[in-house]
Amino acid sequence: MSSERLIYLPLGGAGEVGMNAYVYGYGAPGKERLILVDLGVTFPDMDSTPGVDLILPDISWLADNIDRLEAIFITHAHEDHVGALGHLWSRLRKPVYARNFTARIARLKFEEHGLPIEEINTVGARPETVEAGPFRVQFVPISHSIPETSVMVIDTPGGRIVHAADFKLDTDPVVGEPFDAALFEAIGDEGVKALICDSTNVFVPDPGRSESTLAKPISELVADARGMVVATTFASNVARVKTLAEAGRAAGRSVCLLGRAMKRMVGVAEEAGVLGDFPSLIAPEEAAKLPRGDVMLIVTGSQGERRAASAQLSRGKYLGMELREGDTFLFSSKTIPGNERGVLRVINAFSEIGVDVIDDSTSRYHVSGHANRPDLARVHGLLRPDMILPNHGEHRMLREHAKLAAEAGIASIVPTNGMVVDVSGEVPEPVEYVDAGRVYVDGAVMVGALDGVVRNRIRMALNGLVMVNLLIEENEALGEPWCELMGLSEKGRSGAPLADLIEGELAQFIDRSSRKVLADDDKLEEGVRRVVRQVAMEEIGKKPEVIVVISRLQED
Amino acid sequence: MSSERLIYLPLGGAGEVGMNAYVYGYGAPGKERLILVDLGVTFPDMDSTPGVDLILPDISWLADNIDRLEAIFITHAHEDHVGALGHLWSRLRKPVYARNFTARIARLKFEEHGLPIEEINTVGARPETVEAGPFRVQFVPISHSIPETSVMVIDTPGGRIVHAADFKLDTDPVVGEPFDAALFEAIGDEGVKALICDSTNVFVPDPGRSESTLAKPISELVADARGMVVATTFASNVARVKTLAEAGRAAGRSVCLLGRAMKRMVGVAEEAGVLGDFPSLIAPEEAAKLPRGDVMLIVTGSQGERRAASAQLSRGKYLGMELREGDTFLFSSKTIPGNERGVLRVINAFSEIGVDVIDDSTSRYHVSGHANRPDLARVHGLLRPDMILPNHGEHRMLREHAKLAAEAGIASIVPTNGMVVDVSGEVPEPVEYVDAGRVYVDGAVMVGALDGVVRNRIRMALNGLVMVNLLIEENEALGEPWCELMGLSEKGRSGAPLADLIEGELAQFIDRSSRKVLADDDKLEEGVRRVVRQVAMEEIGKKPEVIVVISRLQED
Repeated sequence: MSSERLIYLPLGGAGEVGMNAYVYGYGAPGKERLILVDLGVTFPDMDSTPGVDLILPDISWLADNIDRLEAIFITHAHEDHVGALGHLWSRLRKPVYARNFTARIARLKFEEHGLPIEEINTVGARPETVEAGPFRVQFVPISHSIPETSVMVIDTPGGRIVHAADFKLDTDPVVGEPFDAALFEAIGDEGVKALICDSTNVFVPDPGRSESTLAKPISELVADARGMVVATTFASNVARVKTLAEAGRAAGRSVCLLGRAMKRMVGVAEEAGVLGDFPSLIAPEEAAKLPRGDVMLIVTGSQGERRAASAQLSRGKYLGMELREGDTFLFSSKTIPGNERGVLRVINAFSEIGVDVIDDSTSRYHVSGHANRPDLARVHGLLRPDMILPNHGEHRMLREHAKLAAEAGIASIVPTNGMVVDVSGEVPEPVEYVDAGRVYVDGAVMVGALDGVVRNRIRMALNGLVMVNLLIEENEALGEPWCELMGLSEKGRSGAPLADLIEGELAQFIDRSSRKVLADDDKLEEGVRRVVRQVAMEEIGKKPEVIVVISRLQED
Repeated sequence: MSSERLIYLPLGGAGEVGMNAYVYGYGAPGKERLILVDLGVTFPDMDSTPGVDLILPDISWLADNIDRLEAIFITHAHEDHVGALGHLWSRLRKPVYARNFTARIARLKFEEHGLPIEEINTVGARPETVEAGPFRVQFVPISHSIPETSVMVIDTPGGRIVHAADFKLDTDPVVGEPFDAALFEAIGDEGVKALICDSTNVFVPDPGRSESTLAKPISELVADARGMVVATTFASNVARVKTLAEAGRAAGRSVCLLGRAMKRMVGVAEEAGVLGDFPSLIAPEEAAKLPRGDVMLIVTGSQGERRAASAQLSRGKYLGMELREGDTFLFSSKTIPGNERGVLRVINAFSEIGVDVIDDSTSRYHVSGHANRPDLARVHGLLRPDMILPNHGEHRMLREHAKLAAEAGIASIVPTNGMVVDVSGEVPEPVEYVDAGRVYVDGAVMVGALDGVVRNRIRMALNGLVMVNLLIEENEALGEPWCELMGLSEKGRSGAPLADLIEGELAQFIDRSSRKVLADDDKLEEGVRRVVRQVAMEEIGKKPEVIVVISRLQED
């Protein structure tokens, strides 16, 4: 046995769809040289992360071992793969490698964060190879729902790793390179130690459909529509945006893009040379002047995001445009679990206006960007790895993917974030656990997921807040205690103002408290908190959060 | 034309699935005698109603016109039809009519609220008739996902209304009465003025499947399972609970119910005589002692509710039971939109334990309780009403249902909550709008949806909170201003504690404020708020909520 080992360490993405960040290492145990593949975000929600702007992987372990890190590779430009780069690169400061389109998106993020864009290197497709310490890395083109997505072929002295981030098997993807089975078979022929593989659609039983199958139904839909046609999809799905725009052009409609992300993605795709023959566009001001039947809008907001163009249009006039009865709105997209409420809010708002909404309940106008179960099995067969480590999925998906590997007689486990997996041997072996977690971007600062800041927000939202103010002079109360409520009913069962009742009880509590208690902030606070909760429980049946402010006046 | 009119007024349920409350009136305009059909709740969520326990329809209009109200009718015992009765009946105090099973559930609610259960009257099926003012009301049995659901046939001098709350067309519903097409045709033969009709599944293109089709697949699943089998469904779906229990019995397993609602519903159904030959049950303590392969649990929590049995089991030991690798968990249910995150949390937690979860992605183990599009068309055809008023649905569903009516040449509109619709003529006519809205049950009190209480909770959750305390004596500041943070990062860009920075800026602000400003609470508060937000924006990029407490010391 060699004293070197080859390891895999997900810092994000193992047990979730989002926040992808995967470390590979080769070398003596504890001294492996490292590379990082992807550095993405995940998105907050009101249930668990109110007020948070973005969620990043906690890369403290990597930062603590920064001297061992050689380079960063980005597989594709989706936010869950590249979105954290601008936020976290300053803690890593290693060269970034990506293909042309992805590199351009990454550079925009660097510019926003004032980072040195020359650290982002554009790499061509295999056979071009990046050497980074003991790693030789190639970008192998594969189809997905964004241009220039790559599978990473990572050769090391300990064997070959194939890191298949998001992908689908599409031989006619409209934009970008078609899936090339022979290429993947050739990579398999050279011997693959471990395949790290997308698990998103492992529960979908049928083979995935090609992006190109959508041109006909979408064109027909647009051709048959009477009023204005508005379609939404992920802005980064440049192939879809093209299909939608071409359907508009074919129906004799002028095409207008709405939403910053939409214009940015199409612009970058054109600059990168991956998007040719895109229909000419008109500005919103022009579109607003044309007869409704001559216009096709392609807009952001497929997930019902409140500030995106779709939601704005559902609430009324937006950039001079206003939807009306007889217009058509197409969701050429799938609702990501958790976004249902937002999407339904938009659909029902359009319904009230009289707009005909075609939602994602039929799969006529959308195909997934991820490989389905039989597609995954096919990739397993082409690459024939010694082991499969499922990634990019919730636990249930990873587990199912491991089962699928087992069915083909391939060794597998279910990795979790922070698990160091030794892939040197014949089967994957968890050998260590490092700290992995989440960091919140909250306004201009970062907040640790376990810092309690967001927990306190959730508590205030669930329980309401009572703020109590006490003046103490020479260990005697000065005046009456004073309280303010926020997020609580003003009156309770008795009909008297809750604040008055709390203040009354607090006054009695202060009266009967000893000077010793009044002198002790902790005891005083504890007592006040107890009184407030007791009164609130009796009056309104809730136990609010309590902030106690004790002002101690000093003798002059 | 008669000077009397027949009106329909939804106070809840028109534009939402939930909170059903429908008023019918007959008489001179503004003096119509009234009945209420159903009085249900809807459920809160963290996005829009954090901390709220239940959402009720605002029945102020009805309470203001209480002298005109004759009676209350409940179509079936689902919470969205009967759940508000205990909370709101004391404002109405009119007799309640329901069939046996529903009446028993309603009485339990009355008992919990200390209301007079003798006000709840048990009524038999048609031809039994309740006379209430100008209304003659019959309960017509129909199939749904709870026993003894009824369509209300409401005869008035202005014609017949058929109120078809939730229903499906099931000729073999396992529990309760099968759908009787001849009966509905006969009702149609007698002439129907207006059909008020369930719209939940109007977008589902295929005819609904019978409850009885589930026995075979569920039995096979349970028979093939090795370890413990746990199944969840809505407790009120007594037919499903029976199918699940019988599958357990057939596989030689002892059946155990977990969850208060599950035991209560089965108990009431047995007492009401609608549930016969239910397998004998064992207690959790007994189940815990048996070999895993001999046990079948039927549990609450099909929607991933945190406190329900399914979620408890996913987190570890519950009532002595603990799931293990090789056990099977079946969702014999559909995830209601908005509940996805909770359900996925439970599924992934089971996945981590190694439990095989059969979710609702296949429709093998669940059928809906609502009529699909062709079923709705069939009911339209049997009843042949002059007009159709879609209810029980989001706006997009009501609109689609109105389109379906139009396809059959039947007059229709899309009613909204608070819209008074005159159905006296040949087509429905909106004639007036009354206040309709929502009231929140929040702990022990009720809070109006527009009171701002919940809005403040959401603001605290999104923005965090700064509380400022100022002492003023003789219009001069006494000591330094003091602040506390909640739900905010302790430190910002500068690295100094945010509270210190705010206090510093506030001290300067106070110093430069005139005695006039210091004497004026409003001006002082406004200034303090501005300073706090400015510092917070600079330091952490957020504008927090601010509570300012000014303590004015009086001279002794």
